[in-house]
Amino acid sequence: MRAPMEIPAEGLPDRVTIYEVGPRDGLQNESVIVPVETKARLVSRLAAAGLTTIETTSFVHPKWVPQLADAEELLERMERVPGVRYPVLVPNERGLDRALERGVTEIAIFGSATETFARRNLNRGLDASIEMFAPVVARATAAGMRVRAYLSMCFGDPWEGPVPVEQVVRTGRRLLDLGCAELSLGDTIGVGTPGHVTALIGAFAAAGTGPGRLAVHFHDTYGQALANTLAALRAGVTVVDASAGGIGGCPYARSATGNLATEDLVWMLTGLGVRTGVDLESLVATSAWLAGELGRPSPSRVVQAMSSEQEPDHAPA
Amino acid sequence: MRAPMEIPAEGLPDRVTIYEVGPRDGLQNESVIVPVETKARLVSRLAAAGLTTIETTSFVHPKWVPQLADAEELLERMERVPGVRYPVLVPNERGLDRALERGVTEIAIFGSATETFARRNLNRGLDASIEMFAPVVARATAAGMRVRAYLSMCFGDPWEGPVPVEQVVRTGRRLLDLGCAELSLGDTIGVGTPGHVTALIGAFAAAGTGPGRLAVHFHDTYGQALANTLAALRAGVTVVDASAGGIGGCPYARSATGNLATEDLVWMLTGLGVRTGVDLESLVATSAWLAGELGRPSPSRVVQAMSSEQEPDHAPA
Repeated sequence: MRAPMEIPAEGLPDRVTIYEVGPRDGLQNESVIVPVETKARLVSRLAAAGLTTIETTSFVHPKWVPQLADAEELLERMERVPGVRYPVLVPNERGLDRALERGVTEIAIFGSATETFARRNLNRGLDASIEMFAPVVARATAAGMRVRAYLSMCFGDPWEGPVPVEQVVRTGRRLLDLGCAELSLGDTIGVGTPGHVTALIGAFAAAGTGPGRLAVHFHDTYGQALANTLAALRAGVTVVDASAGGIGGCPYARSATGNLATEDLVWMLTGLGVRTGVDLESLVATSAWLAGELGRPSPSRVVQAMSSEQEPDHAPA
Repeated sequence: MRAPMEIPAEGLPDRVTIYEVGPRDGLQNESVIVPVETKARLVSRLAAAGLTTIETTSFVHPKWVPQLADAEELLERMERVPGVRYPVLVPNERGLDRALERGVTEIAIFGSATETFARRNLNRGLDASIEMFAPVVARATAAGMRVRAYLSMCFGDPWEGPVPVEQVVRTGRRLLDLGCAELSLGDTIGVGTPGHVTALIGAFAAAGTGPGRLAVHFHDTYGQALANTLAALRAGVTVVDASAGGIGGCPYARSATGNLATEDLVWMLTGLGVRTGVDLESLVATSAWLAGELGRPSPSRVVQAMSSEQEPDHAPA
């Protein structure tokens, strides 16, 4: 099996936490509805491959996301490995009630950096959405839960176009001020580039929010996700969202390519000598299996290449 | 049409020369044999999109590369735009004779950083291949030609595995010492990562070869090409090889993904405020047209996304 040579670069963290979003964000954006047994198996295999943070499902109304209508059943069936965190997305107080009923210890809320996407995705404006999240975060933290906040459309918005950095910082800090432990900056349509990433993380730092409270969530729609991740690591971020096999096409770009593939990320980090705890071969086998379940090839470059790897037997001219 | 926000990052060059390899390296590695009229049209469209260096074909024996058997005919038919360079690959003295007959002013030779690949691709060892190139470079430069040297397998080799940095530097400098103006460092199987890139360019500098004489040629087989390019730019390299639409799968990895796509590179450089002179929309239209001619979708993320872009008309939950 091929592997990168390990040659560290300066200015990078020793270790990165991969926040695996495949079972939730990935499957939510696939057209196939996966049986609950397959989801439970996926979560187990991801933990066995060494992933320590796996967002498993969402307590959104099944009418909106039928792919995740089996949230309770999955939480009941799935194996839990000690030391692994299994956060669940919670859109509102009703979702929080369901999370509390199931004994979930870590949740994520999903905010927007733009007014238009807030209205379209959350059915209310930015201010009203923050008001909606306030009691969710307050009640969750009071119950001892860790809360992560996603902030989507941080680099560009399909309706509004470019999104000003100051607007992202202002809205992100409002979410953190509610009591969230971590803010995940999402490039939902994948338009960002490395200088933009550096500038955004720098603007958060200048406003008083250091990179230790930030995560990054890049989409590979325009091929920029890994270069952007490198810029984020250089800026001090140590939590990176990724999706096993790159599953979860982005509906806003109408492209087959959405989330950064966990395997492509692990390849780069392994080469850079940054520890992740992930066994790449085991993860690739998991994503190749999942691609079969979904009935489409994995968009991950590493999964594609490693699945077709064999000994070279000839050289072209 | 979507575009990245332009936010420069520190430590990058103001301008990058894209060395377009699609017509030669791309088409050479596609299974379809493209008619000469289509090739001439491709070269014209690439120049019209703003590319200023376009490697057009190869004077290799047609027995080895039937895809480029029409080299003379293409050179006769194709339009030449003033200010645009049209280098041609020349494998040996016989190839050089053909280039001289056609009035070519710039050539490229194709060396290997590893003994095994030299024997398999050039049918002779490293020392013997340098001996073969010596009269090619001497006669070409005497005739006023500019000569570029490719060095393949600089990061890993499918037979030998990891390739030591010192070996790459030693072999690369031997090619430059023959009289080549530029050395293009090729990650032929795409296994390299950014720290490796920085180390290799640094080792060349320590040996006396600054980044001004280097170009980089990354393959996206494992998704690393753009992150590696970013590392190379930070190390001072200003010439980057890329293939329009990402054409030219890499036969050694048996993957559909080979060369870095010019569009994905232009997207990043545009966002970083690095000038290339390329009009992205025109280039994407060219690659979408070419994908139709080749009968397979472009592996470029940008081409895929921009070809399917439309106004968003709904938001998922």
